[in-house]
Amino acid sequence: MERGITVARNGSDKTYSGPNDPPSGSGMLQLVEELYPIFRSITGSGVRQTLGVLQKYIPVEMREVPSGTQVFDWTVPQEWNIRQAFIATLDGKRIVDFAAHNLHIVHYSEPMDRVVEIDELRRHLHTIPDAPEWVPYRTSYYSKSWGFCLSQKQLDRMTEPRYRVVIDSSLQDGHLTYGELLVQGRCDETVLVSTHICHPSLANDNLSGIAVATALARCISEPQPRYSYRFLFVPGTIGSLSWLATNEDKLQNIKYGLVLSCLGDAGDVTYKRSRQGTAPIDRIVSHVLRHDGRPSKIVPFTPFGYDERQYCSPGIDLPVGCLMRTQPGGYPEYHTSADNPEYLRPDSLAHSLAILQQIVGVIEGDASYRNCSPKGEPQLGRRGLYRAMGGQSAVGDQHMALLWVLNLSDGKHSMLDIAEQAGLPFASIRTAATALAATDLLAPLSNNSP
Amino acid sequence: MERGITVARNGSDKTYSGPNDPPSGSGMLQLVEELYPIFRSITGSGVRQTLGVLQKYIPVEMREVPSGTQVFDWTVPQEWNIRQAFIATLDGKRIVDFAAHNLHIVHYSEPMDRVVEIDELRRHLHTIPDAPEWVPYRTSYYSKSWGFCLSQKQLDRMTEPRYRVVIDSSLQDGHLTYGELLVQGRCDETVLVSTHICHPSLANDNLSGIAVATALARCISEPQPRYSYRFLFVPGTIGSLSWLATNEDKLQNIKYGLVLSCLGDAGDVTYKRSRQGTAPIDRIVSHVLRHDGRPSKIVPFTPFGYDERQYCSPGIDLPVGCLMRTQPGGYPEYHTSADNPEYLRPDSLAHSLAILQQIVGVIEGDASYRNCSPKGEPQLGRRGLYRAMGGQSAVGDQHMALLWVLNLSDGKHSMLDIAEQAGLPFASIRTAATALAATDLLAPLSNNSP
Amino acid sequence: MERGITVARNGSDKTYSGPNDPPSGSGMLQLVEELYPIFRSITGSGVRQTLGVLQKYIPVEMREVPSGTQVFDWTVPQEWNIRQAFIATLDGKRIVDFAAHNLHIVHYSEPMDRVVEIDELRRHLHTIPDAPEWVPYRTSYYSKSWGFCLSQKQLDRMTEPRYRVVIDSSLQDGHLTYGELLVQGRCDETVLVSTHICHPSLANDNLSGIAVATALARCISEPQPRYSYRFLFVPGTIGSLSWLATNEDKLQNIKYGLVLSCLGDAGDVTYKRSRQGTAPIDRIVSHVLRHDGRPSKIVPFTPFGYDERQYCSPGIDLPVGCLMRTQPGGYPEYHTSADNPEYLRPDSLAHSLAILQQIVGVIEGDASYRNCSPKGEPQLGRRGLYRAMGGQSAVGDQHMALLWVLNLSDGKHSMLDIAEQAGLPFASIRTAATALAATDLLAPLSNNSP
Repeated sequence: MERGITVARNGSDKTYSGPNDPPSGSGMLQLVEELYPIFRSITGSGVRQTLGVLQKYIPVEMREVPSGTQVFDWTVPQEWNIRQAFIATLDGKRIVDFAAHNLHIVHYSEPMDRVVEIDELRRHLHTIPDAPEWVPYRTSYYSKSWGFCLSQKQLDRMTEPRYRVVIDSSLQDGHLTYGELLVQGRCDETVLVSTHICHPSLANDNLSGIAVATALARCISEPQPRYSYRFLFVPGTIGSLSWLATNEDKLQNIKYGLVLSCLGDAGDVTYKRSRQGTAPIDRIVSHVLRHDGRPSKIVPFTPFGYDERQYCSPGIDLPVGCLMRTQPGGYPEYHTSADNPEYLRPDSLAHSLAILQQIVGVIEGDASYRNCSPKGEPQLGRRGLYRAMGGQSAVGDQHMALLWVLNLSDGKHSMLDIAEQAGLPFASIRTAATALAATDLLAPLSNNSP
Repeated sequence: MERGITVARNGSDKTYSGPNDPPSGSGMLQLVEELYPIFRSITGSGVRQTLGVLQKYIPVEMREVPSGTQVFDWTVPQEWNIRQAFIATLDGKRIVDFAAHNLHIVHYSEPMDRVVEIDELRRHLHTIPDAPEWVPYRTSYYSKSWGFCLSQKQLDRMTEPRYRVVIDSSLQDGHLTYGELLVQGRCDETVLVSTHICHPSLANDNLSGIAVATALARCISEPQPRYSYRFLFVPGTIGSLSWLATNEDKLQNIKYGLVLSCLGDAGDVTYKRSRQGTAPIDRIVSHVLRHDGRPSKIVPFTPFGYDERQYCSPGIDLPVGCLMRTQPGGYPEYHTSADNPEYLRPDSLAHSLAILQQIVGVIEGDASYRNCSPKGEPQLGRRGLYRAMGGQSAVGDQHMALLWVLNLSDGKHSMLDIAEQAGLPFASIRTAATALAATDLLAPLSNNSP
Repeated sequence: MERGITVARNGSDKTYSGPNDPPSGSGMLQLVEELYPIFRSITGSGVRQTLGVLQKYIPVEMREVPSGTQVFDWTVPQEWNIRQAFIATLDGKRIVDFAAHNLHIVHYSEPMDRVVEIDELRRHLHTIPDAPEWVPYRTSYYSKSWGFCLSQKQLDRMTEPRYRVVIDSSLQDGHLTYGELLVQGRCDETVLVSTHICHPSLANDNLSGIAVATALARCISEPQPRYSYRFLFVPGTIGSLSWLATNEDKLQNIKYGLVLSCLGDAGDVTYKRSRQGTAPIDRIVSHVLRHDGRPSKIVPFTPFGYDERQYCSPGIDLPVGCLMRTQPGGYPEYHTSADNPEYLRPDSLAHSLAILQQIVGVIEGDASYRNCSPKGEPQLGRRGLYRAMGGQSAVGDQHMALLWVLNLSDGKHSMLDIAEQAGLPFASIRTAATALAATDLLAPLSNNSP
């Protein structure tokens, strides 16, 4: 096990577990810290460097789409790279310096080196007056511009009439880069897991998503899962559009999908439904969250947010929801320098991963059975599945799960259906079904076994 | 612009506006005051006189149905007119006089002129003991009778052993009269607007409905609307039955309908659903009220109330709901002399009209579009529909409306559907659709343009 | 009228009443008291003796199924009878004696007569430490065992090192016995009423169910009802399974069904839905309880409880719900010696019966009519169904019922549907329909009259 992803030693949910024990929350946080200093944008060397780090943990492949490629209504932009950028006094003192913080530069700023009057300069400076120590995050990918982000305190100290502004950037034909990992399952029906990789030094948005996706990929690679799992590490919007535009033949196989983002903050888990609203993934995530024991929130689909906007556009309309903790914009640190690794909690990362493992557990494990003795209740006692002594008033969840599986295994209900109707967690129903399937009472429906 | 309907000078909702600016609340109140002194019943000269006043404002036509005409299960009654009626002491002092208030006479009272013992007389007198200064309103259209309505205070002063009772009324073959105005639209599909015109000096019930219906008719007559609008000013029950029985061929064209009544009091707007319960008119009114910003109430259909009872009888079953403020019987002044013009509020009349104009705005404006770039989100920025600078956490309703229209213009959703799902007012969605339809991104679905 | 079931003298609901007035609560309690001393188990002479008592009140027939008969997944067990059983000190003092209380013996205990060390004995003794004066109820029908139930106080006094244990029982081929009563209706469509009869001295569970079922059978036997009614008095589980396995040809006729149990305690009525969840019986019971005026509870189906487990097994799936007051296990006295006749309340028994009579009233009385004058409201006044004087603001439920029946008698709504939509009790709607059917306004739909 490499640095960055260490194994959890105790207590995490094992509803579904591959041969690799799930990485711990602090292991995922180490990966976040490793990736935090890298400067990323929607194109450029930072994304490649980031994928290079991930390749230490998972066999993710790097894909490159040339600048100028038409992807649906969009064109892949030129590749933008930056070496240095600063604002200095005329006597050479650097007062805002990209070397000090990745957020200081507005993305896709054009190259320049000139003295600028303070009035003109102010129109290119971005601050957060309400949080005077924080630096905001700004981009201008598709509109030629330049600018710096700085703290309000820095701005307040800028009293000179003019400053030298240097941006040593380049915008030229190159590539858009993204990462893709296919874990081939026993069938080609696919679970899509997508997370955005374009943000620079912002920890929750979205190094948390990258770290949890990486951990999930490790967990499910062995033994071979039932479904295939396709992980995408893509620059927001243009990355998912590029993948969709060049992989339309693969879309029909996608049966479940999740966009992962903002999974490391202290807030409760939030699930945003797919555009379809009642797709199997929506039912499954709702079920898992209902039985999680911690508060959580389910919100309807809206056409704003992360790459679910693309996966759920009307001409694509995949069953893709979005798993988050606090929603984007719902915490003041969002898109500021305060969204740094200290903002993350190891137990939140671990809990986010555990929820995902339970979701995968239902996806992998759901199936339908047939009650082979459907007239009246079968005699569980002589099969060792019922207590011998009668008369007590209560039975436990374990016994209720047996009765529910028998009662609803009528060819019309899957184990998830049964769990939902019984108000019991999927894992209890699956345990009961497994016990019953070991007797003559329950048989898998053909072509439907997990 | 004649007296009675003056133009609002500022601020009313312009979601839909014809060439005539909407009449103001005080303008509608002036019309109420003009109509208040006229004595109306289900037949007789008062209805004709009332329609004559309305003809100063709108080209409503007067229809006459002869007494004895069979209308479904009913027969148009004889025409009843009254010249004078009073109760006097034997020495000639009039103590209850129809000349003093229109409500003093029970409608369809038979003619008489005789001295009546107080005990017999009392059985023909109607008061409101709980509101001793108010005179109630009573009718006996279909059962031969006579009677007077008076205040409890008047009754308490009647200490003589006998009184002279004079009713100078006539009941003879004639006509039932109602008003009809068809605003022919670009198609024959029709919006029915019906209001009852049979009540004498009662301001909210229903001079308010008559005034608001008149104002609405003025607003929508030009430019030619998409739908045809049929306004009916009918005596309650027998009037709507008469129209229905003689116009069955027109019923299939009625796609939306509203009964208007009690629209001038200070209470919140109440909408009573059609018998169908989920007809388009029910959805539209619910939508408009949800976004109105003032409290409102939606109640289910019941087979009691105004003429929706007839339009929603099982053999007719039109999609007709009822728009009111406080429901009939829900305010103590209902059907008493206290329901006079002072009980009405100009701003309530104006608000009722504004709600109706918004309802008309949705009826007229709803349509479906097709997203011409349905795979992924289109690039709004290069079409001038998106801010250039990225990174801010929130977007406004205006931008959300653009995204919703694009996301749901899949051939299955009209603008009203989109507004409902987005939780945004119809007008916002329509504005967004108009902006998108001006680009290459959105095209109207054939045969469905507003 | 025999001892045990006396006639109610006043006030009980007469929605449906046969020629026999409904038995009173105290009459039903007398029957409970008569049956209480009899020792019952799932087989044996006690069930026969119990049915013998019931035959004094209703013509229930005794059915016998031989030991060894295969009923679905089960085998009818040998017949178990017991003459005496006790634990005595070695000097002969009986300290736990079956003669003192029927609950002292674990059902199906094997015969024995030997001295047992206290340590071994303790493993065969059952108490309720939290209720030290109460004796629990325990069974071991299908697993060879023996044991005694006693109060914790009794156990605390057992300080000897060894005791003599005598169980004079027999387990040998014989029969399973149950009672069946078919009240043949005008059609073969059947209402199933099933109650369990296997418990010994437990009053609420289920002598209350037996007494209420007996009373109900008396009430509906004359005049001949529309539906056939099949009453089953069966040992729990094995009894209902035996009936089902030997009467599969009759199942298709069962249109409604209720399991009755625990109907005499002071708690609110609880209805547990059938497995189908929205079967007519579920709608009917919900309707009756909603209008009962007392609190009640509707709970979803679960595959645990009484014989609804068998009737609602997936291969049977009959529309059978369960009517109870407090649910099994929901009161501390459940399955203990404290569930004795003093625990029951006559008014609870009477109320349970009244609810059942109302349910039968809807089953028997529901039908659909056709409004013969469906266009507009018919003129009720000239048929004597409407007050003559108009203008009052409110109308009573009685008049609303007339209007609802007319409005919804469109061939798509039964009287129950109308009652549900109107929010009025079925009886009011039925009264209105009867009044209207006596005029030319309403006619029964063919093949659907009550």
